Amino acid sequence: MKPENVVLSDDGKSVVIIDQTQLPNRTVHLSLSVPEDFYSAIYELKVRGAPAIGICAGMGLYVIANSFGDTDEELFLSKMHNVSVYINSSRPTAVNLKHALDRVENAAYINRGNGTEAMLSAMKSECIAIQDEDIEMCRAISEYGLTLVKDGDGILTHCNAGPLATSCYGTGLGTLLLGKEKGYTFHAFTDETRPLLQGARLTAYELDKAGIDVTLICDNMASIVMKQGKINACFVGCDRVAANGDTANKIGTSGVAVLAKHYGVPFYVFCPSSTIDTNCKTGADIVIEEREPDEIKTKFYTEPMAPASVKCYNPSFDVTDAELITAIVTERGICRYPYTESLAELFKDIR
Amino acid sequence: MKPENVVLSDDGKSVVIIDQTQLPNRTVHLSLSVPEDFYSAIYELKVRGAPAIGICAGMGLYVIANSFGDTDEELFLSKMHNVSVYINSSRPTAVNLKHALDRVENAAYINRGNGTEAMLSAMKSECIAIQDEDIEMCRAISEYGLTLVKDGDGILTHCNAGPLATSCYGTGLGTLLLGKEKGYTFHAFTDETRPLLQGARLTAYELDKAGIDVTLICDNMASIVMKQGKINACFVGCDRVAANGDTANKIGTSGVAVLAKHYGVPFYVFCPSSTIDTNCKTGADIVIEEREPDEIKTKFYTEPMAPASVKCYNPSFDVTDAELITAIVTERGICRYPYTESLAELFKDIR
Repeated sequence: MKPENVVLSDDGKSVVIIDQTQLPNRTVHLSLSVPEDFYSAIYELKVRGAPAIGICAGMGLYVIANSFGDTDEELFLSKMHNVSVYINSSRPTAVNLKHALDRVENAAYINRGNGTEAMLSAMKSECIAIQDEDIEMCRAISEYGLTLVKDGDGILTHCNAGPLATSCYGTGLGTLLLGKEKGYTFHAFTDETRPLLQGARLTAYELDKAGIDVTLICDNMASIVMKQGKINACFVGCDRVAANGDTANKIGTSGVAVLAKHYGVPFYVFCPSSTIDTNCKTGADIVIEEREPDEIKTKFYTEPMAPASVKCYNPSFDVTDAELITAIVTERGICRYPYTESLAELFKDIR
Repeated sequence: MKPENVVLSDDGKSVVIIDQTQLPNRTVHLSLSVPEDFYSAIYELKVRGAPAIGICAGMGLYVIANSFGDTDEELFLSKMHNVSVYINSSRPTAVNLKHALDRVENAAYINRGNGTEAMLSAMKSECIAIQDEDIEMCRAISEYGLTLVKDGDGILTHCNAGPLATSCYGTGLGTLLLGKEKGYTFHAFTDETRPLLQGARLTAYELDKAGIDVTLICDNMASIVMKQGKINACFVGCDRVAANGDTANKIGTSGVAVLAKHYGVPFYVFCPSSTIDTNCKTGADIVIEEREPDEIKTKFYTEPMAPASVKCYNPSFDVTDAELITAIVTERGICRYPYTESLAELFKDIR
C-alpha cells in the first residue's frame, strides 16, 4: 500500500491531497503550494486525521521553503519559522501538527552553516521520514492485528481510523487492509457513526475502494448483527488511552464495547503507543468535548453518504431477549421474569 | 388529555387529523370526508401507528356512510361494505385497521330492520367506543408505569410510542405524559432512532409539546448518558411479545436493553395485552422486516428533524472502560487486562 491522501510531488513544489470533504461522492485531488493553501486545507478539514495533518503540514513547510529562493540562512530560517507559526494556527490543538512542523524546522536549524540547499535537503528528508514512520507504525499495528483474527471473520468497525486519517493502512482499519493484501477475506460491518457519519462517508468508502466486503449499518444495528453471529471481533481506533486502559474514542464506542461483552465478541482498540497517556490515570480524567446541537438536529447530510456500491443491512425491528427486560407493562398489569408464567397468568381468565 | 391526532367532527361529516408527515416542522390539520381522503391519509402515513389507523378508519367508515343519504338498508350496507374493503386495502397488513372496520360494519349489520338512521347511530357509537377504549387502555398502562418510577427520574426512550400513534398518552410515552398531568417532573432522553428518526421527529416533538424536559441524543449516545447516571429507567413500546417475553420492537431496542443491563438500569416494555402473542413461543419465531438500503444511504431528512426548542446532548467522544476491552494493539505489541501493568510494560525501555 502507498499513501494517496497526502503526496509530495516529485519536483518538491507542491503537496497533492485528496479533499476529504468531497468524499465519498467525488474524489478531488488538490495541489497545495502556498501557505494559504495549507492553512485552509487543514482548517476546512480537507485533510483530517491527526497523523495525516502532521504529514501534510511538514511537507507543506518544505514545499514553501523550497520556493523562497534565498541563500541567506538567517533570512531563510526567519521566513520559514513565520510560515510554520501560520500553518500551526490552522488547528492549534492538534498535537501532531505542531510536532511535525517542529521536526521539519529543526532539520533546517541543525544545518546552520551548511547553506540553505543543505537545509532544504534535510527538511525534505525529515518530512518524508515522518510519513515513512507513520506507514511503518500502522503496518506494525496491522501485523499485530492479524494475529487476533482468522480468515473469513466478520469485523465490526466504528467511526474511521483508516488510511485517509494516517498515511497507509490506518490503525483500526489496518488489519483489514493488510489482510486483504495478504489474501484474507474479511466481512466488515461498518457503523455509520452519527452525528457526522465518518463510518458511512469514510470507512465504508475506504474498505469498498480496497475491495473488502463491507456492509453499512446504522449505529443501533450493531446489537442485531452481533446477536446473529455475524461479528467475530470489533475494531476501533482511539483518541487517548489512560494508564489503566480506559479509552476515549468517537461517541458510541463504549456502547459497542458493552454489546461485544454481552454477546461474547472480542473488542480490540488499535493505536500508536504515543496515544497512551500514562499521566492520565483513568478515563475519569479525560474531558469529553461537547459539540453544537445542530449537528444532531439540523445539519443533516443531504448528498448520498456512502458509495453506491456499498451494501446496507437495514432491519426495521430487532428482538430483545426476555432476560434483559425488567418488566412488561400492559393495561392488565405488570409482568416480570420468567415471562412464560407471568404473561400466561395475565390471560388466565380470558383466553 | 384529549385525542388531537384523530378527531370526529361534531356534525359527523369529517374526521380531522394531524398530518404526521409534516411534523415536527409544521402542524397541519387535514379534514377527511370522502373515501379517497382516508385511503391516501393512511397509505401515505399521514396517520400512522396501528391504533390511530384503526380509529381513523372506523370513523371514516361512519362519516362516509353518513353522507350516503340512503334509506334502503341493503343498498346502504352494500355501499358501506365496498367502502370498508377499499379503505382496508390502504395498508392490508395492519391488523388494527381491519379489526376497527369490521367492528363499525358489524354495528350496522346488527341493526338490520331498525333502519339506516339506527345503523348510523350504532356505527357512530362504535367508532367512538374504539377510541375511548384505546384511551382507557393507554391510561391504564400509564398508571401502571407510574408505579415503576419516581418524581425527578431520567427516562430514556427509543422510537415513538406516544399519542400520535394511539389516541391519548400512548404506551411507551404514556407514563411520562400522565405523570406530567399529575405534577411529576421527568427528564426524558430521546434516541433519534435511525434510519427514519421517529424519536427525533415524533417523540421529541410530543414530549416538548407536553412541556416535558426532553433532550435529543443520537442512538450511539445512550451508553454515555446511562454511564453518567442520568437514566433511571428505559421505556419502549413494542410490536410483538412472544410467550417467553422476547419482544420485537424498532431496530436498536435490543441494544438499549443490553446497555441498561450493563449499567444496572431497569428496562421496561409497554404494550396493550393484545400485543402479546402466546402462540409465538420465542423471539426466534418472529420474522424481522428488512427495508431498502436507501433509507440508510441516501434518503436523509433534509429539514430540521426536531423542534427548535428541543435540547440536544452532543458529546463527541466517550470513554470505554478498560474491563470491556479485550486487547489494546499498538506498534510495540498487544496489551491485555490488567492494563495498568501491560501498558507500563510497553514503555519500560523507553520512558
